[in-house]
Amino acid sequence: MAAVTYELIKTCKQTGARLGKVHTPHGSFDTPVFMPVGTLATVKGMSPEELKEIDARIILSNTYHCYLRPGQDIVKQAGGLHGFMNWDRPILTDSGGFQVFSLSGLRKITEEGVTFRSHLDGSKHVFTPESVMDIENDLGADIIMAFDECAPYPAEYDYVKKSMERTTRWAKRCKEAHTNTEKQSLFGIIQGGMYKELRIESANQLKELDFPGYAIGGLSVGEPAEIMYEVLDYTAPLMPADKPRYLMGVGTPDYLIEGAIRGIDMFDCVLPTRIGRNGTVLTSNGRVIIRDAKYSRDFSKLDPECDCYVCRNYSRAYIRHLIKCGELLGLRLTTWHNLYFLINLMKQVRQAIMDDKLASFRDEFYLKYGYTK
Amino acid sequence: MAAVTYELIKTCKQTGARLGKVHTPHGSFDTPVFMPVGTLATVKGMSPEELKEIDARIILSNTYHCYLRPGQDIVKQAGGLHGFMNWDRPILTDSGGFQVFSLSGLRKITEEGVTFRSHLDGSKHVFTPESVMDIENDLGADIIMAFDECAPYPAEYDYVKKSMERTTRWAKRCKEAHTNTEKQSLFGIIQGGMYKELRIESANQLKELDFPGYAIGGLSVGEPAEIMYEVLDYTAPLMPADKPRYLMGVGTPDYLIEGAIRGIDMFDCVLPTRIGRNGTVLTSNGRVIIRDAKYSRDFSKLDPECDCYVCRNYSRAYIRHLIKCGELLGLRLTTWHNLYFLINLMKQVRQAIMDDKLASFRDEFYLKYGYTK
Repeated sequence: MAAVTYELIKTCKQTGARLGKVHTPHGSFDTPVFMPVGTLATVKGMSPEELKEIDARIILSNTYHCYLRPGQDIVKQAGGLHGFMNWDRPILTDSGGFQVFSLSGLRKITEEGVTFRSHLDGSKHVFTPESVMDIENDLGADIIMAFDECAPYPAEYDYVKKSMERTTRWAKRCKEAHTNTEKQSLFGIIQGGMYKELRIESANQLKELDFPGYAIGGLSVGEPAEIMYEVLDYTAPLMPADKPRYLMGVGTPDYLIEGAIRGIDMFDCVLPTRIGRNGTVLTSNGRVIIRDAKYSRDFSKLDPECDCYVCRNYSRAYIRHLIKCGELLGLRLTTWHNLYFLINLMKQVRQAIMDDKLASFRDEFYLKYGYTK
Repeated sequence: MAAVTYELIKTCKQTGARLGKVHTPHGSFDTPVFMPVGTLATVKGMSPEELKEIDARIILSNTYHCYLRPGQDIVKQAGGLHGFMNWDRPILTDSGGFQVFSLSGLRKITEEGVTFRSHLDGSKHVFTPESVMDIENDLGADIIMAFDECAPYPAEYDYVKKSMERTTRWAKRCKEAHTNTEKQSLFGIIQGGMYKELRIESANQLKELDFPGYAIGGLSVGEPAEIMYEVLDYTAPLMPADKPRYLMGVGTPDYLIEGAIRGIDMFDCVLPTRIGRNGTVLTSNGRVIIRDAKYSRDFSKLDPECDCYVCRNYSRAYIRHLIKCGELLGLRLTTWHNLYFLINLMKQVRQAIMDDKLASFRDEFYLKYGYTK
């Protein structure tokens, strides 16, 4: 049996969204789920206990970043990411593909792999499907992602086709190189850009490799929301129903809900932590830029409907003061609240699936949040 | 009765150090005590719950900084510092004297007060004994400090004498201006530089004003340790035995122990938080610069003898990684450990007083910590 398995609990009659459970060597989590991003073996600003307090059930860490710092051998020696960062719940590592392909100008792609220069010191490195599997094995996450090529947007059909086909060949090599299958499950990544034909081809090729889970890559890379929804509309149904479906790099509230409606189980995004550090918070009434002077004497909580630790204990005026002064606690509180907001949103999404009313929930949420569609 | 009172529990037979309790409107704390510094209404990097977890019983906040940001009226409207920052234990505010006198070149001193320019935007402000009392009343700390002039080191006798005499006149004006005596106690600050005669004069003049507590200011301003100990040797005995004695701005482990031995009850310093953010930690075997490459594969805890949250859960290798990457959690963990170290040190000091063996404790501590005297 695979290290990671999926259990379908219920399908929303109103939308077809899936309520499920993913089982891993470090415990189970309910889906649809939002995964906070812990790039460098830490979710910026949060302690493991705080992540548990907001009920984070799985986090993501970045292979590219951990490979550069502190290096795979140090993490391995510490007992993998779980031991290194003191987190005993599930972890997913990406493959570094997205990162090295984002280093435009610094990289060279061949069939063998990618030669790139570190964004830190310019030093030269090579990622191949085999070397990435070796790194991800050392990092020891429960779910590891295949090394893929993520095509940019927009991109020509021919480029995307070649890139997608290479992703399939690399997925095969990843599968052969990944031997620690009892403790870590390797997910394949469907590519194909915004071309339906290529997405279908990619999904079919990867399904033949029989991965324990599948992701959709190459979305949320700058395309309009409508195009992303369209790709999801025809790609998600191609994914095996008995395995987890992961939409990579997606994390705004509307994308999470729309993704769930289209049958996606897992999401990750740096959005809540990144905008939090910039002083922007997510609330049930939309985003609030807490740095604004108008909040300097606002002694209400960040979100009138929120009952998180931050909203129970601190005012907008205090958090604004902290952020304006560059105080660490300010970054902690905005990050905490934003992560709680998305994790709590997914809890509501799961309840709505249970109640067969996810479309109604979406409409109500949008109305309050300020989305007009 | 004064808002803040002192209860002497026991005197160490070996040293004369005082074990006591200070009672305030927000609860009591055992002395000798170390007060973490929360300059801008937050102890950098720490939440109020974490401060309680490490057993911080009283914190200090800076009047000068809170006056500039967010401003006294916002703090007042929030219910004072306690309400603003969500801290329900005792708070002490300094008077801003030390800060405005440190702004050399930017300030002008007259009998009325001090005109200075903000270090933030160069805007002009005036602090007088009366205006400082008004600010400290609005900030609402349990213990508030008189507006004093802190002479630099070294300084000529005549300069220090005039400065000390003005400090007495300002102390009188502070006492007259401070009316909220039921909820806040005003402490006087003994000045006089490194001149015994002036310290005696200052102490006698201030004692006539009958403050509920007294501080020694103008020490730890660059003078050698021996001179500070000498000043403490003759100044502490001049302070009323039935009131708290506070040594301002002092916080290295040796100064804390030597201060306690000389009869001091209260201490504060930015040292543990500041060096923590720079990647230096205090341990029972001396300081450790955790950024050093030699700790990259050191999977032991920061301090082999420490049982704080940080030492129970994280390795030197992980904390080094976080600090090297500029991760917020790294700053949090080093700060947490350092504050715990000093608060726990004071707990040991209190136990040693109880056991009449503070001198023996000091010698053992120095031996391990690496102080040679």
